[in-house]
Amino acid sequence: DSSLKIFTLNSNPALAKQIADVVGVDLGKSSVTRFSDGEIQINIEESIRGCDVYIIQSTSGPVNEHLMELLIMIDALKRASAKTINLVIPYYGYARQDRKARAREPITAKLVANLIETAGSTRVITLDLHAPQIQGFFDIPIDHLMGVPILGEYFLGKNFDDIVIVSPDHGGVTRARKLADKLKAPIAIIDKRRPRPNVVEVMNIVGNIEGKTAILIDDIIDTAGTITLAANALVENGAKEVFACCTHPVLSGPAIERIQNSKIKELVVTNSIALPEEKRIDKLVELSVAPLIGEAIIRVHEQQSVSLLFD
Amino acid sequence: DSSLKIFTLNSNPALAKQIADVVGVDLGKSSVTRFSDGEIQINIEESIRGCDVYIIQSTSGPVNEHLMELLIMIDALKRASAKTINLVIPYYGYARQDRKARAREPITAKLVANLIETAGSTRVITLDLHAPQIQGFFDIPIDHLMGVPILGEYFLGKNFDDIVIVSPDHGGVTRARKLADKLKAPIAIIDKRRPRPNVVEVMNIVGNIEGKTAILIDDIIDTAGTITLAANALVENGAKEVFACCTHPVLSGPAIERIQNSKIKELVVTNSIALPEEKRIDKLVELSVAPLIGEAIIRVHEQQSVSLLFD
Ligand SMILES: Nc1ncnc2c1ncn2[C@@H]1O[C@H](COP(=O)(O)O)[C@@H](O)[C@H]1O
Ligand SMILES: Nc1ncnc2c1ncn2[C@@H]1O[C@H](COP(=O)(O)O)[C@@H](O)[C@H]1O
Repeated sequence: DSSLKIFTLNSNPALAKQIADVVGVDLGKSSVTRFSDGEIQINIEESIRGCDVYIIQSTSGPVNEHLMELLIMIDALKRASAKTINLVIPYYGYARQDRKARAREPITAKLVANLIETAGSTRVITLDLHAPQIQGFFDIPIDHLMGVPILGEYFLGKNFDDIVIVSPDHGGVTRARKLADKLKAPIAIIDKRRPRPNVVEVMNIVGNIEGKTAILIDDIIDTAGTITLAANALVENGAKEVFACCTHPVLSGPAIERIQNSKIKELVVTNSIALPEEKRIDKLVELSVAPLIGEAIIRVHEQQSVSLLFD
Repeated sequence: DSSLKIFTLNSNPALAKQIADVVGVDLGKSSVTRFSDGEIQINIEESIRGCDVYIIQSTSGPVNEHLMELLIMIDALKRASAKTINLVIPYYGYARQDRKARAREPITAKLVANLIETAGSTRVITLDLHAPQIQGFFDIPIDHLMGVPILGEYFLGKNFDDIVIVSPDHGGVTRARKLADKLKAPIAIIDKRRPRPNVVEVMNIVGNIEGKTAILIDDIIDTAGTITLAANALVENGAKEVFACCTHPVLSGPAIERIQNSKIKELVVTNSIALPEEKRIDKLVELSVAPLIGEAIIRVHEQQSVSLLFD
């Protein structure tokens, strides 16, 4: 039984510390800084020879910096004779570029998978991939954890009377169904349609939301355009109040302003992406994925199945 | 004979334009921008099916942005059925991390070579690698061009009377010898030594510089500490005047200030790295590598030897 070490890079050191606490180890000693010209300099300050090493790093923004930190760290660990190099990527960046939607587009989500394998990773643990098919982009084992149970527990604790889980678009209905199962609630769907070209979209709501507490769910909230329009449409159509939740709070560009100005009462997210102070508005509730990820690491290390964690 | 297309990314579009002019083609239509969250978005706006494509991109700072642009572009071109994907990397970033100097260091120069191959490149054309051994990090063909002839031509045009070519350290003597051959001049070496630990370094000059025009040469000038100390030591030891030159003007951190305040009369560099306005000080002379690289592209495309370009 080889020893387990957890290292953090720069995307989410607070989450890494929480995960190490759950697992019951100290974080490995290392520093990831920059040379004067901006090139990444990595120092691993303890031996990791023969160890099972876990690296905690979300490829959140600045995505290219965080991805290169990850790849260079893998290279350093490989050359320092780590036994296994396990990546914990709570937020997998570039996941939306997972297919050619137009001619001559890259498939960056696949490229990133190839880069990670080329660098020398032996396993990936990740959370709520934008499309579950991205698992198939890897030839190494990948454990795919779910944020829905964590979000669901939070809303269960609220003891709402009459709720409906709402998917903001067609693509998210399966996710909404999972949360609805957990909360024993019905679902509804925002069915956006453009009646004719160059005519404003209509927000049609499929399902009964009248007088109910609506909970919108998505995997990623980025510029928050979709979710805030959906929230406002729900209130206009008779919902009593609207909550929103997601696993990955990308929250770029106008997101915070849009959420502030929207009818969303509370936005519930996980700490898969570290949020700077200015994004921690009063409406925002952050739940930790550390217990889930810590448990997954323990099970992987003890060669037990991780799939039991999915409920 | 398949058609040749040249695309630029964001590191050095002015050089790319010059290169396209030398080759006699228009730059390919493409845009490389960012999504709201900072992820790279690439649009290739013309068909490249069956073409020999050349991408011009230095992995200069911001190095991780420029490297990821390059990798994603390769992926897009590969999936769009380019016949060959030839990278022109005038400045190869991360080249100084080319070996394990200390325990548990990465070898990022090799990692980058692997990433480039994994993405799908079929050939690399580059200029003055920090160590020529980096050629061996690639399994695909690589053409390694030299900046010395360009720098040498410039100094030949000055018709100096009595010159000496100076290497600022032991590692650069071979390069100094090449420039000296071109200029039919003797060489000297700055021989830094620390007599005892924690005692200031002594700048000992090996070779005769008395009354001569000294030309310092290096491959990269980054923070400019070495080169400015060397220049000042040369003047203190009787050189008539000091010029400095390098292929790659990284010029990070205190570089510009140090050069301004130094005894260097003129700093001659190439445009392998695009310089922002604030670094274009009066002392700085920029020479173009476009004729060299353009000629290399023509020869590669016509399946002729590139090694003839080395003198
Ligand atoms: N970082 C990003 N931000 C916004 N859109 C993106 C991003 N990456 C990819 N896309 C686009 O989002 C689309 C996929 O989103 P989806 O339909 O939600 O899976 C693709 O057509 C991409 O062009
Ligand atoms: N971007 C960089 N800036 C400064 N030093 C670096 C950089 N990358 C690597 N190094 C260090 O430079 C040393 C190699 O430089 P050299 O001896 O000139 O080949 C290595 O020991 C590296 O730790």
